[in-house]
Amino acid sequence: MKSARTLQQLASRSAGVIGAPFSGGQPRAGVERGPDLIRAAGLLQKLQEQGCAVKDYGNLQFEAVLEDDPVGGVKQVRSVGGANRKLSEAVQEVKRDGHTCVMLGGDHSLAIGSIHGHAAAVGGLSVLWVDAHADINTPLSSWSGNMHGQPMSHLLHELQDKVPVLPSFSWIRPCVSARDVVYIGLRDVDPAEHYLLKLLGVKVFSMTEVDQLGVAKVMEQTCDYLSDKVKKPIHLSYDVDAIDPSVTPATGTPVVGGLTYREGVYIAEHVAQTGLLSAVDLVEVNPLLGSEAEVGSTVSTAVQLLLACFGRRRQGDHPPDYRLPEP
Amino acid sequence: MKSARTLQQLASRSAGVIGAPFSGGQPRAGVERGPDLIRAAGLLQKLQEQGCAVKDYGNLQFEAVLEDDPVGGVKQVRSVGGANRKLSEAVQEVKRDGHTCVMLGGDHSLAIGSIHGHAAAVGGLSVLWVDAHADINTPLSSWSGNMHGQPMSHLLHELQDKVPVLPSFSWIRPCVSARDVVYIGLRDVDPAEHYLLKLLGVKVFSMTEVDQLGVAKVMEQTCDYLSDKVKKPIHLSYDVDAIDPSVTPATGTPVVGGLTYREGVYIAEHVAQTGLLSAVDLVEVNPLLGSEAEVGSTVSTAVQLLLACFGRRRQGDHPPDYRLPEP
Amino acid sequence: MKSARTLQQLASRSAGVIGAPFSGGQPRAGVERGPDLIRAAGLLQKLQEQGCAVKDYGNLQFEAVLEDDPVGGVKQVRSVGGANRKLSEAVQEVKRDGHTCVMLGGDHSLAIGSIHGHAAAVGGLSVLWVDAHADINTPLSSWSGNMHGQPMSHLLHELQDKVPVLPSFSWIRPCVSARDVVYIGLRDVDPAEHYLLKLLGVKVFSMTEVDQLGVAKVMEQTCDYLSDKVKKPIHLSYDVDAIDPSVTPATGTPVVGGLTYREGVYIAEHVAQTGLLSAVDLVEVNPLLGSEAEVGSTVSTAVQLLLACFGRRRQGDHPPDYRLPEP
Ligand SMILES: [Mn+2]
Ligand SMILES: [Mn+2]
Ligand SMILES: [Mn+2]
Ligand SMILES: [Mn+2]
Ligand SMILES: [Mn+2]
Ligand SMILES: [Mn+2]
Repeated sequence: MKSARTLQQLASRSAGVIGAPFSGGQPRAGVERGPDLIRAAGLLQKLQEQGCAVKDYGNLQFEAVLEDDPVGGVKQVRSVGGANRKLSEAVQEVKRDGHTCVMLGGDHSLAIGSIHGHAAAVGGLSVLWVDAHADINTPLSSWSGNMHGQPMSHLLHELQDKVPVLPSFSWIRPCVSARDVVYIGLRDVDPAEHYLLKLLGVKVFSMTEVDQLGVAKVMEQTCDYLSDKVKKPIHLSYDVDAIDPSVTPATGTPVVGGLTYREGVYIAEHVAQTGLLSAVDLVEVNPLLGSEAEVGSTVSTAVQLLLACFGRRRQGDHPPDYRLPEP
Repeated sequence: MKSARTLQQLASRSAGVIGAPFSGGQPRAGVERGPDLIRAAGLLQKLQEQGCAVKDYGNLQFEAVLEDDPVGGVKQVRSVGGANRKLSEAVQEVKRDGHTCVMLGGDHSLAIGSIHGHAAAVGGLSVLWVDAHADINTPLSSWSGNMHGQPMSHLLHELQDKVPVLPSFSWIRPCVSARDVVYIGLRDVDPAEHYLLKLLGVKVFSMTEVDQLGVAKVMEQTCDYLSDKVKKPIHLSYDVDAIDPSVTPATGTPVVGGLTYREGVYIAEHVAQTGLLSAVDLVEVNPLLGSEAEVGSTVSTAVQLLLACFGRRRQGDHPPDYRLPEP
Repeated sequence: MKSARTLQQLASRSAGVIGAPFSGGQPRAGVERGPDLIRAAGLLQKLQEQGCAVKDYGNLQFEAVLEDDPVGGVKQVRSVGGANRKLSEAVQEVKRDGHTCVMLGGDHSLAIGSIHGHAAAVGGLSVLWVDAHADINTPLSSWSGNMHGQPMSHLLHELQDKVPVLPSFSWIRPCVSARDVVYIGLRDVDPAEHYLLKLLGVKVFSMTEVDQLGVAKVMEQTCDYLSDKVKKPIHLSYDVDAIDPSVTPATGTPVVGGLTYREGVYIAEHVAQTGLLSAVDLVEVNPLLGSEAEVGSTVSTAVQLLLACFGRRRQGDHPPDYRLPEP
């Protein structure tokens, strides 16, 4: 396994894009259309225009699971398990090919396969989870039974004795340590989730801390925390509902009081500058929720977040060999 | 009289809610519907869900004053005097019962009775006034003649020689010292008001200072200032027009450039954490101004501000005896 | 030539307003209506109400240029050259009369004449350019060929060997040094522009730096930088598209992620407090773009920015001879 820095130097040159048109981790139709909509908004061309090589791995095709009755209240378990298995393999391929992986969701249950595959390919990861929600319910603590509120419980080493074995989940190996996780943007956290975050001592910048410190200090402290000992590759899992619903309303579980557009972009810019970004999820864009203008704002924000992840800077940029036309 | 801390320890366990459906301190009909609308948005249930005991004292009934001609240009003086006398008595009852008092307005002239009753019950107060306006005109300096722009002049010891005796106001005893007042959010201040604030040396964080310091430093300095010598019980008088009209448009005198939703919530969260909050006014929600969506946003913001006053935290929370369901 | 401070003491007492109804620096009709709309929103009366003397020099009349074919792709060169020559003379008159000059655009190509005339009257200037764009393309580097994206290249001493002589531009003398320029608000910068900003070492606070430092530190650093050695008169060139399109949508080239209303006002307040503001441009208000509400918000924001430039403070104010009416 190559060192994080070497991997990154390869990866930073190119994006490998996987579309994951999957909505089974939550009940609202539409989020499976996210990948095509984000592509249609010009993500790939814009990445290329800013000097990033792009390989589009296309959309994954997920088999319908005919019998997928709830398991102890948790819905579509087998669908979620199967889709994420396929996604994990796809992410491993992208990483083997040397790209920074871009996973376009789809709902946030897809983080299971994305992070699993990423860790399988590169080893120990830092996870930066930007979200209104902690998504760390266990199958037993979840009230809603929606898998998109649970991915972290399936990924964390420390929670394996609290998570029952689910059908189609046996392939998953926990691959993230609680001390390698940072949350930003939380503002709607269940009691069980708060209990777990405290139990594990997870680093959390809820909106209260964002208000208190400002986004610049939050990112400074995030990067200090994550690179305290070893600089591991960063997996950025970006739920578009982290951003305020006035900006990204077309999402399934919007929560008022979110990150501003500028804070959202600043986070992505800052992660890009670490040189450690190795994979990014952009999830929960649902074009069936909201007006055309609302969907447009949500999608174009998603694109801008990804462009910032790959080095777009608001101060501008020019190629090293740029020559000004002169008289 | 019990010490502030002891009182607070009692109070923090429970909210005593008074509805004050009064609009006589200003000219726009509708603000008297605030209490019922805020209740209908689920305030009481939500408070209980977050572990706060709630007693609803219902809505006050205010007698119509048949002859209430302007007094030197000031409108509805006797109505305002009478309503506030009733409110003062109700607040005293709530405080005697050991609750943190929640006064749902109605217009901001109600702060006269709310603060008067609060002080009558617990003695010396700190007043934190969160508002786009200073509401410190005297009856003689007011241009509009609306009492909701004057409550502070009737409450401050230092201004009694500047305030003429008004009919139905003789029961009022000034009960607040200028040095115990902090303003946050000002951005529309009359010359007379500015003159008085400077004359008395009142601590003011206008929007300029909020921009300059950030809301976190504003709250830190506010609490340092108010608890410099003695930690007095805090009376938080929250005018919903302190928040930006893009968030709380359904109010009588909106002013652009207000607090963000997040800043508004942060202020309430921070006051809650002092352990000194003893009474809170939430005023100037007017459901007749604005579209359904605008009223909805205004009312739900009002509810969130009050929930934060009673300890709701955006990072989440769990009961001390919480037990995670395990396999 | 009088010292900057003396000039300013004269100027701060009065505003000399020039309307420049010109749209030839860009392709969208409507921006020529800016001056009348800003006047109709009450700018002059409001300035007077806050104690500022006002002289309205009226609207400039620009002759139509019958033959104005593109010059190497740059559009309406002769129109822009002629209009700015007239504007430069008008600004010189306003400065000779001892006013702080207010130039109401019109598009941002007018900064050529405004800054040229200002410098001709008072000598060395500091330029504070608040804009989403750097407007520093040369005629040869511009993609669009629109002159409103080029004014800085015609004004800077350092760029004269990079700028070809254009018809109707021979009267222009470069009059600003790169070290006397500060940009705030950039977020859409062309490669050529970024190259030039780096080449010249221009001080730039893009939105990334605004996010990182906060607007208060940005203004502190801006004023420290500009007054490092000599306190020169400040020319504030305010493009309304610096502000976020949610606030000022009625403009030709809006860019998401802009300054908040509060940040925009804070910048103007801070410049006012330096006592060095000697001329201000307010440009790119286009009432033909957007709904009535959008135009209203754009225009009233423009007015508030200008009021803040002339000393309006959100904390309020009162005349030195104010007397409170007493009982
Ligand atoms: Mn999520
Ligand atoms: Mn979420
Ligand atoms: Mn008020
Ligand atoms: Mn108010
Ligand atoms: Mn411009
Ligand atoms: Mn611009």
